[in-house]
Amino acid sequence: MTQTLAIGPYNESEKAGLTQELAPVYLDGPSGVSDLDAAQREAFTAVAYKGHHPFGAAEMALLPNVGVIANYGVGYDAIDVAEASARGITVSNTPGVLNDDVADLAVAMLIMQGREMEHASQWARSGKWAEQGEYRLNRKVSGGTAGIVGLGRIGREIADRLAAFKMDIHYWSRSAKDTPGWTHHGDPVSLARAVDYLIVALVGGPDTEGFVSKEVIDALGPRGILVNISRGSTVEEGALLDALERGAISGAGLDVFQNEPNIDPRFYALENVVIQPHQGSGTVETRAAMAKLQRDNVLAYLAGEDLLTPVN
Amino acid sequence: MTQTLAIGPYNESEKAGLTQELAPVYLDGPSGVSDLDAAQREAFTAVAYKGHHPFGAAEMALLPNVGVIANYGVGYDAIDVAEASARGITVSNTPGVLNDDVADLAVAMLIMQGREMEHASQWARSGKWAEQGEYRLNRKVSGGTAGIVGLGRIGREIADRLAAFKMDIHYWSRSAKDTPGWTHHGDPVSLARAVDYLIVALVGGPDTEGFVSKEVIDALGPRGILVNISRGSTVEEGALLDALERGAISGAGLDVFQNEPNIDPRFYALENVVIQPHQGSGTVETRAAMAKLQRDNVLAYLAGEDLLTPVN
Repeated sequence: MTQTLAIGPYNESEKAGLTQELAPVYLDGPSGVSDLDAAQREAFTAVAYKGHHPFGAAEMALLPNVGVIANYGVGYDAIDVAEASARGITVSNTPGVLNDDVADLAVAMLIMQGREMEHASQWARSGKWAEQGEYRLNRKVSGGTAGIVGLGRIGREIADRLAAFKMDIHYWSRSAKDTPGWTHHGDPVSLARAVDYLIVALVGGPDTEGFVSKEVIDALGPRGILVNISRGSTVEEGALLDALERGAISGAGLDVFQNEPNIDPRFYALENVVIQPHQGSGTVETRAAMAKLQRDNVLAYLAGEDLLTPVN
Repeated sequence: MTQTLAIGPYNESEKAGLTQELAPVYLDGPSGVSDLDAAQREAFTAVAYKGHHPFGAAEMALLPNVGVIANYGVGYDAIDVAEASARGITVSNTPGVLNDDVADLAVAMLIMQGREMEHASQWARSGKWAEQGEYRLNRKVSGGTAGIVGLGRIGREIADRLAAFKMDIHYWSRSAKDTPGWTHHGDPVSLARAVDYLIVALVGGPDTEGFVSKEVIDALGPRGILVNISRGSTVEEGALLDALERGAISGAGLDVFQNEPNIDPRFYALENVVIQPHQGSGTVETRAAMAKLQRDNVLAYLAGEDLLTPVN
């Protein structure tokens, strides 16, 4: 009897890998767990999880012999890790392999917003370039001051790239870190006040909910650009929308939103936002690496070995 | 009598600077020179030039006492420098101050094309994200191999940035240069064959016309992305369009075109091109610095001093 339950919207290539190595039972989402019969549920010892639907006590209670929940993605805020720990379940994620992609997207969104590249593209494609002349001048991006909120693996990748754009790097983290001359701030308001660009690279979950508050957003000021590639939950989205609408900040580049993919329609009316559909890690190469790392965590558990990338 | 003739589409801020420091006579373009009367033409000793209309022997002959043509822009291919030299006229340009902006745009266009960011933006904004799910996977950009065609000041700025994206840097230039471990190619076809991304940073003018030939484009191959921030003339545009249309290369990011702003309409039908309206240096900060450097070259000439940035 199969030991692995694979939950979530896996694509064909991911399913091929899972089927070959683990021959799992597939469910589209966690709500399907309760439809399985008890014998089947009790046979599962591992869950391969993908998606943003909450997976918590109710689901774990239905899977009494599961010892690992291997998440697909570096952010595992959908999984109730405290509950898992209490039940002796190890949770793993897929860190490292997606850092480059997410950092690439963050940097590109920042330049796109500063240089108004989507509007400039439309200016050319609509024929206005030929009819009305040059696109309007915008703002220089290189040489500015960048503030990274959360200097974990992804935050560092972003900072390393922005340093090559001659930016002065500031960051917020709970404690100062070993960095090449970057400036630590213990308070996110102080960070926002010091920088032109604020790039949010926090982990998600309850601890960081609304961390980028109205006060932080206001401190960024009318020349400020906010970039978020972490989770929609980390930013007070109502305050961000207000600030964008009234020009209290200059603009934003956002890959993540609250209630995505059903994002607040106020975003669509804004001309000063670059919107991406949470595709930070969305490359063929990286998703294949994430899928492999998820499978390798499950395989390690089933073989009685240490997980490669446990989070609890 | 005023000594300076200012030719080209100056904006209000640039005109304010010129009027304050040089009180020039203004013309929209070089075709207006012949409309001036002879006494006026003979009084001019300096030209402040902006634009892409050719300025050559005919115009110079009408301005017999001009000793400097101070170009606004790093690319001075509109000006016939050989003719100017023969007449003892010094030509200057505005190098250095625009390197960062142009490099920023090149890097952003490369990531936008690789990560399909304009299409992903439309996916979100059109509601397809909510209705049809995730945007399709695309390709990892960091860690690839980049080839810079022309390792001048701008080429180096681009290479320095791409190195921070963990790219292996190759380049073509007439002779090998002092670089941090980058690979020199003496032949652009060899360069194109070796890389994923080909970024054209040549000077314009007759010497580089069609330098990125059909053979170079074909050598880039079906995974290749071409970025051009130099001049439309440096690329064999018909061959590029053919290659993009039949998928012989993966895509392109283009800030410059032949016959701009009336660019070939075949570009508009392509989904694998990021189009920008020649806005490489188009920021408030940089254009102000370019305008100042142009004026400073004229002022130096009028004061009998060496030009700051002569090109001949």
